[in-house]
Amino acid sequence: MSLLTDLTAALGPSHVITGDDLARYRSDWTTHYTADPVAVARPGSTAEVVTVMQIAAQHGVAVVPVSGRTGLVGGAMTTGGLMLSVERLNKIRDIKPGARIAVVEAGVVLDRLHEAAEAEGLYFPLWFGARGSAMIGGVLSTNAGGSNVLRYGSTRALCLGLEVVLADGRVLNLMSQLHKDNSGYDLKNLFIGAEGTLGVITAAVMKLVPRPRAYATATLAARSLPDALVLLNRLQVASGGLVEAFEYMPESFMRRLAEARPDVRQPFNPRHAVNILVELGSTRPADAAAAPDGSLPLATMLEGVLAEMLEEGMILDAEIAASEAQRRLMWQRRELAAEITVARQPAIDTDICLPVDAVATFFERIHARLPALDPGAETLSVAHLGDGNIHFTVFGSNDSAELYDTVVEAVEDEVQALGGSFSAEHGVGLSKLASMRRRKDPVALEVMRALKAALDPTGRMNPGKVIPD
Amino acid sequence: MSLLTDLTAALGPSHVITGDDLARYRSDWTTHYTADPVAVARPGSTAEVVTVMQIAAQHGVAVVPVSGRTGLVGGAMTTGGLMLSVERLNKIRDIKPGARIAVVEAGVVLDRLHEAAEAEGLYFPLWFGARGSAMIGGVLSTNAGGSNVLRYGSTRALCLGLEVVLADGRVLNLMSQLHKDNSGYDLKNLFIGAEGTLGVITAAVMKLVPRPRAYATATLAARSLPDALVLLNRLQVASGGLVEAFEYMPESFMRRLAEARPDVRQPFNPRHAVNILVELGSTRPADAAAAPDGSLPLATMLEGVLAEMLEEGMILDAEIAASEAQRRLMWQRRELAAEITVARQPAIDTDICLPVDAVATFFERIHARLPALDPGAETLSVAHLGDGNIHFTVFGSNDSAELYDTVVEAVEDEVQALGGSFSAEHGVGLSKLASMRRRKDPVALEVMRALKAALDPTGRMNPGKVIPD
Repeated sequence: MSLLTDLTAALGPSHVITGDDLARYRSDWTTHYTADPVAVARPGSTAEVVTVMQIAAQHGVAVVPVSGRTGLVGGAMTTGGLMLSVERLNKIRDIKPGARIAVVEAGVVLDRLHEAAEAEGLYFPLWFGARGSAMIGGVLSTNAGGSNVLRYGSTRALCLGLEVVLADGRVLNLMSQLHKDNSGYDLKNLFIGAEGTLGVITAAVMKLVPRPRAYATATLAARSLPDALVLLNRLQVASGGLVEAFEYMPESFMRRLAEARPDVRQPFNPRHAVNILVELGSTRPADAAAAPDGSLPLATMLEGVLAEMLEEGMILDAEIAASEAQRRLMWQRRELAAEITVARQPAIDTDICLPVDAVATFFERIHARLPALDPGAETLSVAHLGDGNIHFTVFGSNDSAELYDTVVEAVEDEVQALGGSFSAEHGVGLSKLASMRRRKDPVALEVMRALKAALDPTGRMNPGKVIPD
Repeated sequence: MSLLTDLTAALGPSHVITGDDLARYRSDWTTHYTADPVAVARPGSTAEVVTVMQIAAQHGVAVVPVSGRTGLVGGAMTTGGLMLSVERLNKIRDIKPGARIAVVEAGVVLDRLHEAAEAEGLYFPLWFGARGSAMIGGVLSTNAGGSNVLRYGSTRALCLGLEVVLADGRVLNLMSQLHKDNSGYDLKNLFIGAEGTLGVITAAVMKLVPRPRAYATATLAARSLPDALVLLNRLQVASGGLVEAFEYMPESFMRRLAEARPDVRQPFNPRHAVNILVELGSTRPADAAAAPDGSLPLATMLEGVLAEMLEEGMILDAEIAASEAQRRLMWQRRELAAEITVARQPAIDTDICLPVDAVATFFERIHARLPALDPGAETLSVAHLGDGNIHFTVFGSNDSAELYDTVVEAVEDEVQALGGSFSAEHGVGLSKLASMRRRKDPVALEVMRALKAALDPTGRMNPGKVIPD
């Protein structure tokens, strides 16, 4: 029997997608990548995932797990392979408010988990633009980041347990709800961030946290990036580690924002070089109880640190959100980054990470180097500065592959010299294979290949991703 | 040439220990395990570790990494293998206060890192009894826990980067100082907790945190364990997650403490069933600034929550430490656990973890079951209750292997039925091999064996540990 016959017999015809119905799986929203799968299988349970994997093994066909398809690195693309979509594994199996955990299937959309946690007065603290479409399976497989990593960690830090179906259909049950579990090797973290190259994540146990009852949010202009880092450390000490977000938008970002969206009020006039969006969040009732003058203690604390640094000259200007509407405006500016970045093409985008105290040096060096590579190049940056994670985009004067490689290599040179990484929160997929080959420790690559061969000896799990040949 | 000749030529005679000088390596402080190594090699650099591993490979000899030898599971024992001691890899290579990281070698004693961090106004938040002897290498290899895991996580959560020498002498450089790094598989976490069975950890990048400037500490009696959990959640919300320790000592613990150490004042008279040591720590200046009456806001917050729950009947009695001496007394009681446990033999000790809301049920079930197994058995428990981690010890009426197995299996039955783990923070080593065989997901064991074979194909890295045959 053929692959499609077997799959259809197992899942029913409506859950094996072929022909013209494949259209929406042939590309993703980046439009940089295209796929040509033999079919898309949509199993409805872990048992059906096992069946799909067994059928794929019998037919020797590659399997590419896909979920919300909001990834930025081409990790869910295939030519000739079978896409295994987890979209029907969409149950929130359990929420335990006392233990603060959620047991979810891989096809649960991130925002559904946000809503389910909120209904219990809790928060699932992974937050990024694609939250209305991204699914837990992809979030785990890319170890996704976002705006709250500084406070709560990346996806890896939020996962207690995992269920994985291996290439040959065996089910690996690591669904621990425990905060301590030293029973052998840490298999869970091997599958998180492996982008489906070692198995299919079908379910997970995720941590929830108490929902902050007060936020204090400000946009400020710092004299320099090192001064911004002083602010971050002072705020962490003053608040007891309550900084939820610390986002950097340089002057060029604000200028492009003004051009693209003149309807969005700018924070400072004239513009400053180093603009920071900072947010504190507190669960403490005492931080949220209004003082006699109506002010909130958390906002007063933020104001106090900002005032001190204004006095010292390290901060040049600042506005504190006095209402939820003002807070939303501050976040709107930051979240328009995607829109103003993709509006212009060709764009050479990166997802790099640096030690927090090396970010300023990186910018100095790359801006000094860029004119020699492409005199017409312009740049746009936005950064999760508290994590050292920069999305640095270069708009080249042409869209040649040569220019692309030259610029990416220059960025990698400077990142590597400063102890950084060419890959922070989006994953490797297809887009950073060359960087892996050039920049990753060669022994680490050898070890990855050995692990891949041990878990997927026939090389059928999302082939060609993450590890370069 | 012989193994010893080669090692001596490489390291010098004073760093290859043989004969009578091996005495201190032949057992550990548990006295449950004995070792008979062919020699102990003490390389003084990563390059010398490479040489030792290459020599061991040439001679086909097993290598067992050892560091502070304070482990509780026999993980550093060997018969006929070569012990590789990291004690001379004892440099703190770098401390970066701004970036809050320490770069340390595997032989650095935990308390030295505590002191080095404190000198910078920072804290390395891994804290347990053996901190004066335990070394970073062993701490990482066992993913050690302790009293502050609730706030700061286990060792794994505190490690950013790792340097590992593999079985064949290759050096795996994962010494990232980054908070985000998605460049391929998460190899770091595979070596953390692997107890030296996959390679030798030689150095690491560890996180430091701001040093709390105020603590509020109390000992209290709760009406029940579920009431204690209500207290924990209320304190986490009220303080914004500042609970540093939440330790449970049942009445039997307090009674044994009184018998063994009548000099240590007891908290309550008469005794209560559920005694909790709780500590909050805050970096906020506002939490540490004395009010006009001399009280500290952090202690006032703790007092407020305790008073509310006394009123509601969920707490029966409480004392708040009013001085550093009183705080030390509260911790002294807790830290005498090791002394009062080992004072009586034979002891069947365990290191189990349960979902926090299942701890009470576990105790009910095991105490109901134990008399049928051994009518003369007595028990002693102490728990990191905030993590669900219990050290449950049974003093049997005889020291037969049958009774040991029967009791351990009964504990495992109840732990497994409640979704817990037989291994929380001490590691597996030799002591929990049978538990691994009986209780671990069979597919997880198969995957572990495949990973071990991929990284250590000749099976010479700490053979016989962690993974059962």
